[in-house]
Amino acid sequence: MTTQIQKAACIGGGVIGGGWIARFLLAGIDVKVFDPHPEAQRIVGEVIANAERAYRLLTMAPLPPKGKLTFCQSLEEAVEGADWIQESVPERLDLKRGVLTKIDAAAKPDALIGSSTSGLKPTDLQRDMKHPERLFVAHPYNPVYLLPLAELVGGEKTSRATLETARDRLKPIGMKGVIINKEIEAFVGDRLLEAVWREGLWLIKDDICDTETLDDVIRYSFGMRWAQMGMFETYRIAGGEAGMRHFIAQFGPCLSWPWTKLTDVVDLTDELIDKIANQSDAQSGARGIRELERIRDQNLCGIMQALKAGDEGRGWGAGKLLAEFEEHLWKNAPKAKVEVKVEPLRLLDIKVSPAWVDYNGHMTEFRYLQVFGDTSDALLRLIGVDMEYVEAGHSYYTVETHIRHLGESKLGQEIYSTLQLVSHDEKRLHYFSRIHDAKTGDILATAEQMMVHVDSKAAKACPAPAHVLAKVKEIADAHASLPVPEGFGRHVGQKKG
Amino acid sequence: MTTQIQKAACIGGGVIGGGWIARFLLAGIDVKVFDPHPEAQRIVGEVIANAERAYRLLTMAPLPPKGKLTFCQSLEEAVEGADWIQESVPERLDLKRGVLTKIDAAAKPDALIGSSTSGLKPTDLQRDMKHPERLFVAHPYNPVYLLPLAELVGGEKTSRATLETARDRLKPIGMKGVIINKEIEAFVGDRLLEAVWREGLWLIKDDICDTETLDDVIRYSFGMRWAQMGMFETYRIAGGEAGMRHFIAQFGPCLSWPWTKLTDVVDLTDELIDKIANQSDAQSGARGIRELERIRDQNLCGIMQALKAGDEGRGWGAGKLLAEFEEHLWKNAPKAKVEVKVEPLRLLDIKVSPAWVDYNGHMTEFRYLQVFGDTSDALLRLIGVDMEYVEAGHSYYTVETHIRHLGESKLGQEIYSTLQLVSHDEKRLHYFSRIHDAKTGDILATAEQMMVHVDSKAAKACPAPAHVLAKVKEIADAHASLPVPEGFGRHVGQKKG
Repeated sequence: MTTQIQKAACIGGGVIGGGWIARFLLAGIDVKVFDPHPEAQRIVGEVIANAERAYRLLTMAPLPPKGKLTFCQSLEEAVEGADWIQESVPERLDLKRGVLTKIDAAAKPDALIGSSTSGLKPTDLQRDMKHPERLFVAHPYNPVYLLPLAELVGGEKTSRATLETARDRLKPIGMKGVIINKEIEAFVGDRLLEAVWREGLWLIKDDICDTETLDDVIRYSFGMRWAQMGMFETYRIAGGEAGMRHFIAQFGPCLSWPWTKLTDVVDLTDELIDKIANQSDAQSGARGIRELERIRDQNLCGIMQALKAGDEGRGWGAGKLLAEFEEHLWKNAPKAKVEVKVEPLRLLDIKVSPAWVDYNGHMTEFRYLQVFGDTSDALLRLIGVDMEYVEAGHSYYTVETHIRHLGESKLGQEIYSTLQLVSHDEKRLHYFSRIHDAKTGDILATAEQMMVHVDSKAAKACPAPAHVLAKVKEIADAHASLPVPEGFGRHVGQKKG
Repeated sequence: MTTQIQKAACIGGGVIGGGWIARFLLAGIDVKVFDPHPEAQRIVGEVIANAERAYRLLTMAPLPPKGKLTFCQSLEEAVEGADWIQESVPERLDLKRGVLTKIDAAAKPDALIGSSTSGLKPTDLQRDMKHPERLFVAHPYNPVYLLPLAELVGGEKTSRATLETARDRLKPIGMKGVIINKEIEAFVGDRLLEAVWREGLWLIKDDICDTETLDDVIRYSFGMRWAQMGMFETYRIAGGEAGMRHFIAQFGPCLSWPWTKLTDVVDLTDELIDKIANQSDAQSGARGIRELERIRDQNLCGIMQALKAGDEGRGWGAGKLLAEFEEHLWKNAPKAKVEVKVEPLRLLDIKVSPAWVDYNGHMTEFRYLQVFGDTSDALLRLIGVDMEYVEAGHSYYTVETHIRHLGESKLGQEIYSTLQLVSHDEKRLHYFSRIHDAKTGDILATAEQMMVHVDSKAAKACPAPAHVLAKVKEIADAHASLPVPEGFGRHVGQKKG
């Protein structure tokens, strides 16, 4: 049984629905959308644009061809043929129940139906459905296209198999489905968030601090802890070798100290709302929402990339998940085909990312070699040296590189790279790559490189197999009539001409 | 008035006290410690070892010579002459009050006295002090050597000037002092943590989920949001263009829904403690505390480095703070002196960091150029081309590089780089660098590079000034009798000999 979602339907296309739509589309899944809101197409379009910008920063793995997006005139039209239907309409029980009952009636029998509700119990949502066993809560977090979590919660009539299938199907779209044991209002995440929100409102109301101070307290301390370990694992460390038991013995009693505003719900008067809104303006008002979203997304991508290097390179938390997602993307990348043309191969089209520039906004020296290295990797995939090939024990290693810097690359600049194969034998590839400005075509840098085919375990050079050499020859034949590139065969400091 | 701490004293050297000690020492500040606990030296030593390992991952900026650590026989001896005294003894009012009163009596008049308490009110702590105006809470977060936050809280008798001075003095040691308006038990951070802890205990007790699921819910979702924006800024975005007011209107009413265990404190029965401890063992027991600490620290370093690239390279949150800390370190780095020896300059001693390796644990190709680039930067500092020089409008740019890969570098391997200046003129430096295995001395890679002196604004080559050229000549003279390196002047694919 495949765990891949083939066709998705999204009922409701606000920020959350739009986030699901972007997740599906960028994973190569066709999505049909129904949302009667007059601005739905604009809102969804903006979320997708954000998601595409973010994915360029998130990963260099090859995304599949984007799925097809269709806005439908009716719920029934959207749902038809879909095997995952995600409901993201406003948070009112009667409304959601009605929409889900309609979805149930129109969906094919084995379709999974997820609700994005952040608080309503699935038992209440599935009451009127004919096939309630395939209804579950899949509660995501904003931005849905980046944050991997979906809390999976079943109601009384939901089958366990539904939850497990849902979890399996989320994996190939880069998400982490976490099954919650028992349904309660607000599940787990929003219970925790609600507790902080309530306490935070008291702190603002009582003038203990303002919103900016409260945010700083979070993001300069436990926020960073919680990006990679949760509360219990963090406290386990705090307990030292004695572990959790010691921690609870030490800190448990605090619960009965007068530390929390336990007994009351803060009254959201106009005065308090004004205070919060004004403080928030003072804190963040200098930047628009679009700018804040961009900054947030860049930060989240950077954090996930950092966590990908965690646990000695094995990946940790959301970074491990990202690595698995990338592995899935690589394994499912369509086998590249050599297009035999008498011109250098254009192998990479990218934008200079914020993580690549120095404080003056110029691309850092070593990032040029990263681009050339990615260009080499693209060549290798073209000749059949992909992840599968490498895992089977052979690869090409770079032994020598000569780089010339001819111009500057700046933050956000669109660049592309080309590669010309100059010579080869059964062990070696000798080629010349160029980084171009995408607008002017100007050459910003060149690299002459030599790679050798190796037996990775023996760490010894050895001839490449015939099927690889055949593809190398195809390229070599096409490039044979190209002139030797200017700068080829040059040593450092050599005079021109 | 200088805001640099000259001499620090730490009273109490557990995990928190040890974290402060490590912060001070690595910022070049001498620390005297008093802690009668028989294991104090071992515990503090372990924290310092963790901190040193972490800082190697955190920054390439030059740390000052480590401060001197002295364990004292009495509180008075430790406190003598210190201008920042940090109290980190167990969390009991009578004990802390007694220790702080003793510190007050022994400290020099203008010393600042911070308490690490996570919950006691400074007014209660300062009751018996003769100079209570200089007592404040400086509440840090574990690991103190990495997490930047210190909540600064004054009591009734604390002067505002004390809090502001404390905040200024924390900056050069890489910390973010956040002043809290009014004192309350547990301040701001622990109020928020306490709310989550209380709610979390209910979720475990009621079997809604286990500790691992709860941790996953946090770290795959809002934990990553909170590592970079706090709660209010995040919700501002969720509110969209309509902002905070819209968000509150939409989500405020949830507070009165049955979402939170508002009315009661969970009873920490033996049964509940067993349940949590057992779940935590199942979740994290396969790794020891030291291993978890190492993973956490690597993750935190990676997150802060990622945030340093945030906001289009200007830095964001803890990453911006890191950038400022690094700038401070660079500006205060002792001017490097050229040691005239007839051997290549040894410029860099580093360990291959987790962020530098591929999934096989080998250093990624482009990281070699990063090491060579850092080696070039070290040469530039030696000849007076430091941050100040660059900011004034001139610099050296790399124009050409030739790299040979002769061996492999692996995760955790200790390596060093050397540089031999082969030729130069008033505009150019032509040199040869080597990366060595620190244990065997084997050459792992070489780079021949050419740099040109430029006017950065005009982006044009120009002669370097006399004072730079004088230092270049000193090195050139020392290296004049060295043989031309094997591999120098070579083009890619050239036969040996």
